Amino acid sequence: MDKIWAKAAEGLLSAGSLEKMAGESVTLHGMVQRIRRLGWGAFIVMRRHDGLLQCVIGNEGNEKLLEKLSEEQCAELSGTLQEADIKDASINPSTVELQVDSGRIIHDPEVRPSVDLAKKVLDLHIDTNLDLRPLSLRHPMERARLKVSEALTRAFRGYLYDQGFTEIHTPKICVAGAEGGANIFTVEYFDRKAFLAQSPQFYKQMGVAIYERVTEIGPVFRAEPHQTSRHVNEYTSLDLEMGFISGQEDVMAMEMGYIRKALQLLRRDYSYQLQLLDVNLPEPPDWIPSITLRDAHEIAGEMLEEDFSDEPDLEPVEEKAVCRYFLESEGCEFVFVTHFPREKRPFYAMDDPQTPGDTLSFDLLFRGLEITTGGQRIHDYDMQVEKLRRFGLDPNEFESYLMAHKFGLPPHGGLAIGLERFTARLLDVENIRLTTMFPRDVKRLTP
Amino acid sequence: MDKIWAKAAEGLLSAGSLEKMAGESVTLHGMVQRIRRLGWGAFIVMRRHDGLLQCVIGNEGNEKLLEKLSEEQCAELSGTLQEADIKDASINPSTVELQVDSGRIIHDPEVRPSVDLAKKVLDLHIDTNLDLRPLSLRHPMERARLKVSEALTRAFRGYLYDQGFTEIHTPKICVAGAEGGANIFTVEYFDRKAFLAQSPQFYKQMGVAIYERVTEIGPVFRAEPHQTSRHVNEYTSLDLEMGFISGQEDVMAMEMGYIRKALQLLRRDYSYQLQLLDVNLPEPPDWIPSITLRDAHEIAGEMLEEDFSDEPDLEPVEEKAVCRYFLESEGCEFVFVTHFPREKRPFYAMDDPQTPGDTLSFDLLFRGLEITTGGQRIHDYDMQVEKLRRFGLDPNEFESYLMAHKFGLPPHGGLAIGLERFTARLLDVENIRLTTMFPRDVKRLTP
Repeated sequence: MDKIWAKAAEGLLSAGSLEKMAGESVTLHGMVQRIRRLGWGAFIVMRRHDGLLQCVIGNEGNEKLLEKLSEEQCAELSGTLQEADIKDASINPSTVELQVDSGRIIHDPEVRPSVDLAKKVLDLHIDTNLDLRPLSLRHPMERARLKVSEALTRAFRGYLYDQGFTEIHTPKICVAGAEGGANIFTVEYFDRKAFLAQSPQFYKQMGVAIYERVTEIGPVFRAEPHQTSRHVNEYTSLDLEMGFISGQEDVMAMEMGYIRKALQLLRRDYSYQLQLLDVNLPEPPDWIPSITLRDAHEIAGEMLEEDFSDEPDLEPVEEKAVCRYFLESEGCEFVFVTHFPREKRPFYAMDDPQTPGDTLSFDLLFRGLEITTGGQRIHDYDMQVEKLRRFGLDPNEFESYLMAHKFGLPPHGGLAIGLERFTARLLDVENIRLTTMFPRDVKRLTP
Repeated sequence: MDKIWAKAAEGLLSAGSLEKMAGESVTLHGMVQRIRRLGWGAFIVMRRHDGLLQCVIGNEGNEKLLEKLSEEQCAELSGTLQEADIKDASINPSTVELQVDSGRIIHDPEVRPSVDLAKKVLDLHIDTNLDLRPLSLRHPMERARLKVSEALTRAFRGYLYDQGFTEIHTPKICVAGAEGGANIFTVEYFDRKAFLAQSPQFYKQMGVAIYERVTEIGPVFRAEPHQTSRHVNEYTSLDLEMGFISGQEDVMAMEMGYIRKALQLLRRDYSYQLQLLDVNLPEPPDWIPSITLRDAHEIAGEMLEEDFSDEPDLEPVEEKAVCRYFLESEGCEFVFVTHFPREKRPFYAMDDPQTPGDTLSFDLLFRGLEITTGGQRIHDYDMQVEKLRRFGLDPNEFESYLMAHKFGLPPHGGLAIGLERFTARLLDVENIRLTTMFPRDVKRLTP
């Protein structure tokens, strides 16, 4: 019998720790990101878990190592950390470098990288980038993007835990779609047909009667056939649902609190990635403007000299115009748009008693793109049954969902944030495939 | 234009806060869990986000409220928090109760609950419990179970973030299975067939070359046709994968560190749930014994007076026997079993050069059940291609996966913990459906 001790798990030094260790001897491992050979030896940049380490190897005593070194090798280098002042934003730690005494190659790849990972910007065609994802993501800027999306998920959970939310895990294989049947993937489930969840909507609502406030971060699946820069067919949804609200403003306020938290966390813990990607991070806003869809049509109409007043939804050009308006007039990069018409929102949206035909629903726009949909939901059983019928749906097919309403639900509402979209707008990346680790679209199922 | 302020999101008082507010006036909302009417008035137990609050309502001035009150209503009660010493483990806060001055009913359910949520233990047949999940989960013990599983996920992420891991989101719609093709669900993906991921295995491995250490908590899908108490067809997998290991012991040590952290977090933040469920929580272990499969067969053989030496895998009866042995001899409730034979492990498992036919792989057993599989993976391209062929698989079909090996991967390994199983063993719940919010099995797709 052996004994496994937890302490063996420790010992990976962060870039921040290395910066405090100038003068100390260390042995560090990593993958060789780039090599610059010079007369006296070479600069090696080694990819580590949280950044790139600059290493200096003199010829003397290291001839064999220098001869063999090449990109994407796994290596272990020993030496002394020396103070340095490194301007290259891809390097982290930036105040120390490793003066190498000796080293060894742990593993040699089968082939050399087919793209140049040493380039400052990986200016590949997007299809090439995505085809070669296991390789292209090794570029510092590519991997920094997904670290920013990590920050957005961490802040979401952290903030909501503090606000009394419970984290839930809901099934992705379902018998009905939350959006009324369209754009849904079919699964062969033993001898039956089932569907992939378009959102955790039904389960979040059931969860409100159990835990009052619930949250889930997970995959959602949309069989939308369009191939645009802002759609993928599987994405990560940041979901919350909360009970005992006095109106949808409570849900919007919760999102606002989250956004503040996310921007603060990014600033505090992800400054390496923000600098490397040259991110123009918004100031954590004290408030976010909120306008109705009617007002949004009017603003967009004036900005674009076009009449949108009959549009049932907010057009992409309008989203951009409204954002530009609030940036210029209020200095704010976020805008809530509320009161979407009934036919544009799902059957669980609460109708607004004040303005017939409208729902108590909202979108959050950020830098010209809708990154959230949310709103108040119907909690009354009779009201929900009636609205299902009005939508031409059979309440019997929603029996297990309606159990929540039947046995009682508080007034509640919630929202869903598209992680890849939010990340893309933060980073000013045009195509959300580039803020997705391994995107899925109409044409792409690999890697 | 309205302005949405973040501060509106705050204000939900935790049970812990209420305990510090004896003497203060408050207005609190919740759902009516139980009512005990007495001559002078009634005890009301109100379900809140993090526990049950005891409320005392005298007849005087509250006649109308008391007349209307019934279970599963949403209500708002105002009054004064008074010191109390409540022994009922389902009540939290336990040192204060609400002396109600006035109240109102916010929403009245369509029908009264069809099961008695006031019962101490909800002793329903499991099928009834699962059929009525949106209702049965409102019972304090049912919801406490899923809070314990929340603790296990929080600890996993928290521990791994501290250990330099990056959180990733990998696609669940894939072109090939990680386990070699069997027991996989088919998805109709536009004009093609695709599959649901049985694990994030391939993507975790690719992630090791990008971030060195990666983790994901997400759904996995297994089309296993058997209907047992320890299988569901969709479950939550706690995954990690780490590079630059010196052997699978590094992965096992990481799991051991996580388990210590999880048990500590449970003890610190989930004592209400632990007491309510009367959980016998293991002490955070200093070490975990590790034995080979051969040794495990021998121990189980002696315990059960049966010869298991020719078994290629560990039988369920053996898992129980081995756990009993280590509990009795070492006082330890966790046991690692290592060195499973090649034919019982997937094609990416690293063969053990020391004992031909064996792999560098492990299971973690806990209280008689395997809750983790893990091991070292093949990082060398040629070795992986050869092993795929030996498994009768065509390396061309794994082209995008093998890109990771081709362009270089460090020695690495990882593991996957079944969340529902781990929770079930911690809570001594026989059927993992009861530690799943909405389970999916061969027969069940709703709720």
